[in-house]
Formats: sequence, C-alpha cells, structure tokens
Amino acid sequence: MTKRVAVGGELALIQQIRRDFKGRKSAGVTLGIGDDCAILRPGADQEVVVTTDFTLEGRHFRRDWHSAASAGHRTLARGLSDLAAMGAKPLAAFLSLALPKAFDRRWISLYLNGLRALAKRAEVPLAGGDTAESPTGMVLADIVLMGTVARGTALLRSGARAGDLLYCTGALGGAAAELLLLQQIGRKRKASAGGSPQLFPEPRLAVGAALRRRGLATACIDLSDGVSSDLAHLCDASQVTAEIEVSLLPIHPLAKGNVELALHGGEDYELLFAASPETKMPRSIGGVPITRIGRFKRRGRGPQVTRIEEDGTVSEMRRGGWEHFAGR
Amino acid sequence: MTKRVAVGGELALIQQIRRDFKGRKSAGVTLGIGDDCAILRPGADQEVVVTTDFTLEGRHFRRDWHSAASAGHRTLARGLSDLAAMGAKPLAAFLSLALPKAFDRRWISLYLNGLRALAKRAEVPLAGGDTAESPTGMVLADIVLMGTVARGTALLRSGARAGDLLYCTGALGGAAAELLLLQQIGRKRKASAGGSPQLFPEPRLAVGAALRRRGLATACIDLSDGVSSDLAHLCDASQVTAEIEVSLLPIHPLAKGNVELALHGGEDYELLFAASPETKMPRSIGGVPITRIGRFKRRGRGPQVTRIEEDGTVSEMRRGGWEHFAGR
Repeated sequence: MTKRVAVGGELALIQQIRRDFKGRKSAGVTLGIGDDCAILRPGADQEVVVTTDFTLEGRHFRRDWHSAASAGHRTLARGLSDLAAMGAKPLAAFLSLALPKAFDRRWISLYLNGLRALAKRAEVPLAGGDTAESPTGMVLADIVLMGTVARGTALLRSGARAGDLLYCTGALGGAAAELLLLQQIGRKRKASAGGSPQLFPEPRLAVGAALRRRGLATACIDLSDGVSSDLAHLCDASQVTAEIEVSLLPIHPLAKGNVELALHGGEDYELLFAASPETKMPRSIGGVPITRIGRFKRRGRGPQVTRIEEDGTVSEMRRGGWEHFAGR
Repeated sequence: MTKRVAVGGELALIQQIRRDFKGRKSAGVTLGIGDDCAILRPGADQEVVVTTDFTLEGRHFRRDWHSAASAGHRTLARGLSDLAAMGAKPLAAFLSLALPKAFDRRWISLYLNGLRALAKRAEVPLAGGDTAESPTGMVLADIVLMGTVARGTALLRSGARAGDLLYCTGALGGAAAELLLLQQIGRKRKASAGGSPQLFPEPRLAVGAALRRRGLATACIDLSDGVSSDLAHLCDASQVTAEIEVSLLPIHPLAKGNVELALHGGEDYELLFAASPETKMPRSIGGVPITRIGRFKRRGRGPQVTRIEEDGTVSEMRRGGWEHFAGR
C-alpha cells in the first residue's frame, strides 16, 4: 500500500466516522473530532469518571458469529456498563479503531451503525479517537467512556459492609448461553437489540444512576467476567466475604436453568451490588428486575464466596471467570 | 491456555502495572486503577482535553528496531504531544495493553519502565486502562491522555489568520532519518533519551504551555505526520494558506541537510504554530529553539501550501505525510 492510499484510507475512515456521528452535540463537549484533542467541560460540582475497554476480534468477538452491528454495539456497551456501575451519566466516548487494509466498507458502516444506535439511546457523543491500519487481518477497537457524577457520590466497589444484602439486575447466564449456541451452529444467528444478551447486551445506565441518586447501594460492579469473578473483586475491594443462595438466582431463559452458566458465564453486563438490609429495595427500576441473591459477611477463616444450594449444601465458590472463546 | 492461566495472566499484568505506577499520586485523580472507572476531579475553572493514540507493533514500532523502553516511551509520547499542542497540563493517562500469550516478561518490564520514566518527567499519573491477550503475535497499545487548561484558553488548529507567521520548535527530520538508519542496519541501535528523535521523541509540553499562557500563538498542531501534512491540517482548520521558506528550516543533524526529510518525515513531535507578526517571539522557550519558517496567507486560487526554495523558486508543496514503515 502506498503512502497516498494509506493516508487517504485513514482520512476517509475519519471522515465517515465524523459524518456518521455528527449532530450528537452535547453541552459537555466544547470541541469534538478534528483537533489534536477534544475539549470537555464538566460541571463545576462534578467529578469525571473514565474507563477504557478493548474490543479485539478473536478475543471479544468473532466475525463469523457476531454481526458487524453486534460488534459495534458491544464495543460501546462494554464502556457504558462501567459507567453504569459507577452510577455515572455518559459525557463522551472516544473510539480507537484499527482496520485491516482493503477492508469491507459495508462491514465498517454496519459496525458504526451498531455503535451509533446505542450511542444515540445512551445520549453519548463520539468526541474523538484514533484510526490506524491494523497490522494483522483483525479488527482492533478500544473505547474510552467518560461520564460525570456529583462530587463524592460515585458508586464504588469498596463500600459493601458485613450484613449488607447482595443484589443483581436482570437475568444471568444469557450471554454465555447464547455464545454456546453460536459455537454449536458455527455461524451468525438472527437476533436484534432487546432479545439477545450476547449480541446486544444492554448496559444498565438508568439503574446505576438511580441506585446512586437514591442512595440505594453501598457498592456496585458490572458483570463482565461473571458473578463468581466479579463478586470476588467486590469482596476484595470491600474486605468482606459473601454467600450466594443458588435458588434465588434469576437465570436467563436462554440458559435453561443452568446454574453454572449464571454463576460463571460472563458478559451479561448486569449490575451486581450491595445494599444495607435497612434499605427498602424496589422490585424493579425502570422495568429492570432487581433480585436479592445473597448477603455479605465479615471476613474470617472461611472462603471468600460461599454458595448455598437449594437443599442447604454449602460449598466454596471458585472464581470461574470468563473464558474468552479464543482460548477454547 | 486454560481459563485459569489466562485470567491469572491478565491479573498479574494489572498488578505489575499497578505496582510500577504506584506513588504517582495527583491532586486531580481521586481514584486510580482498581474500580470500574477512575475518578478525576479537574478544577472548577478548567476544561478537560482528551486524546487517544494507538501504538501498534508493526505499524508504530518494530520489536527488532525499537527497544522495549523506546516502545513504552513512544506510546506515552504520542499522547503527551497532543496535550502539548493544546497547551494543556497533563492530568492522567490510561493505558490499554494487549500482549501475546506467554510473552517475554522482561520485555514488558522494560516497556513499562520506558513509559514510566517519561510519565515521571511529565508528572502524569497512570489512572487506569485495560489489558487483554493479543489475538495475534503483536503487542497492541492504546493510550488515553487527559489534560487541563483554563476555560477557553486551549490552543486550537483553527486560530491562524492571514498575515500570521509560521514557527516550529526544535529540529525537523531527525525521527525519519533515524528510522532510515534503523532500516539500513536492520537491528536496534544504541540510543538513550535526549539524543534519539525516533526512539525517544520529547513531547514539547513546557513550550506548548508557555505559548498558551503567554498568549504567543494563534494556532498550534504537533508534528506527528510531518510538516507537509500537519501544516495542511492547520490550514484546513484555519481556512488559510501558507508558504514555507525552505532555507529557514531547522534541519536535525541526523537528517544531514535533507530538506525532504524535514518537510515530509513524520514523528518529530515538535510543535508547528502560528503567531501574529506583532508578537515578540522568543528565540527559545525552556531551552527549546523556536524558528520562524514561513507565513500564512489568505485563501485564493493558488495551492494550499507553497514552498519557496533558497534561489526563490516557488512550487506547490504536496502533502507527503508519514509512510508507516509497515507499508514499505
């Protein structure tokens, strides 16, 4: 590829992104795509929260299983879910995107469409990013999400106390169950936003914001790696232990009652949070179910996380974690 | 690689990064690595500027030419240079890093050392990021730099006016000349920070901050793609044209008087800026030479950028741009 084409290709991609995301103006973004930096103006009483997340082909999605729109949606959803876990309001997104040379323009358009549809619903402008030619045949994306919260009010992982109750939003295990299905059929599966936890996970921004604003939660994390791993992170940060009552788990219909998928499957992008037992917890927030699934206890000699089966059997829950499909 | 090792590998990398960058506390960072998001607290009278830059093996560095320390330095330098172009003070950095599995731990340590040494000098804390297993054999990095400026004072590309003079910092063409040398010898070359424009480019943070604070510049851009490309970007944004006097170019000693390297070679990470002819421009700022190399003119029928040779010959300067070595 000659210099001229390489530079032209990147410029063309930047121009397409700029065109696609035009009009998503925001009070917090003073200057968007097109200078050395974007300029943001958060409110004087606000803190800025920041998260970055890779979405790498072969690690986080596969072009033969995930549609381009799904890959675009998931790129943004990963970052938005981290904002949701802090109870933050989205301020701006930045997309770094490396594409193989001579790449399918239609795929790029559909990818950007998927990303834009979610950005529109979450009311987050794309304020900048970077583009490059991928040194491999792979699509490589990295998303930065910035959000705002009133000073000192962000939901942290570290606030859970012994005696707090453990809750989650939505249903668990659906994303992993759908991934297994994609593996079995070995090709794309028709699905659209709303009914597809793997292809179009829904970041719980409204729930996170409500938990923070209404003071309902003492600690919060989003479920990207799976309950067993993410609950361990929350326990580490809060210096507590936890027990889960397996019979209480809200298992996604796609997971067909499979408890292990609900506990260890990742990428559900639901929220896992702690609340004082005195808190009157609503059954749902904005239509999203809230379910109590366990409680927090003091640290002792026992395991960090305990699981209690329906028949009362008690055992240690090992960190399962999310096995990226590339490793399977 | 099993699930356990994969997750353990990422955790180990995060822990190493957290350990390596501990102690770089900053008033602006309320919460660093370890939660779903970092929390930043810019001053009430400040705007936040944000930039993201890929550093991809095979595109932006080569492991056989660039030492690990150089790759780490360059990852951060790319972002800091964008902050310098806005005249901003660094607030926080976020590093997304994907490494091949079973990767050389010594290389990673040296890479992080190179990044940390520059972070220390620039007084920028690493506040977060992401890690992943690279789906290819390549090291993939994406850096986010955030900085602060007093509201409404950021240096933009769009402020140059017809009649303004054109300046640059430091010397030009050194990074490209050193890259050619690396190509010729086909292996690493001993060099250390300070004397190596390709391996250890020096972002001009102090100069950018002084230009902004002292009101010396009307527009500014950093030289990542090369003078011919970056000046065209500046002209586009400011809706002006420019002429360069070739005899005035401060050519880096490594480029041995090669005007084309000075005009089209990229990655010098010097600043290119415009200033009113009434401004009394210092000859240097903080020891960095400032050289007038041309002027800005009204837009007309002529070319966007004109070059004037020593003998008075006038011709159009085509956008050369930076040919990433992967394409050579």
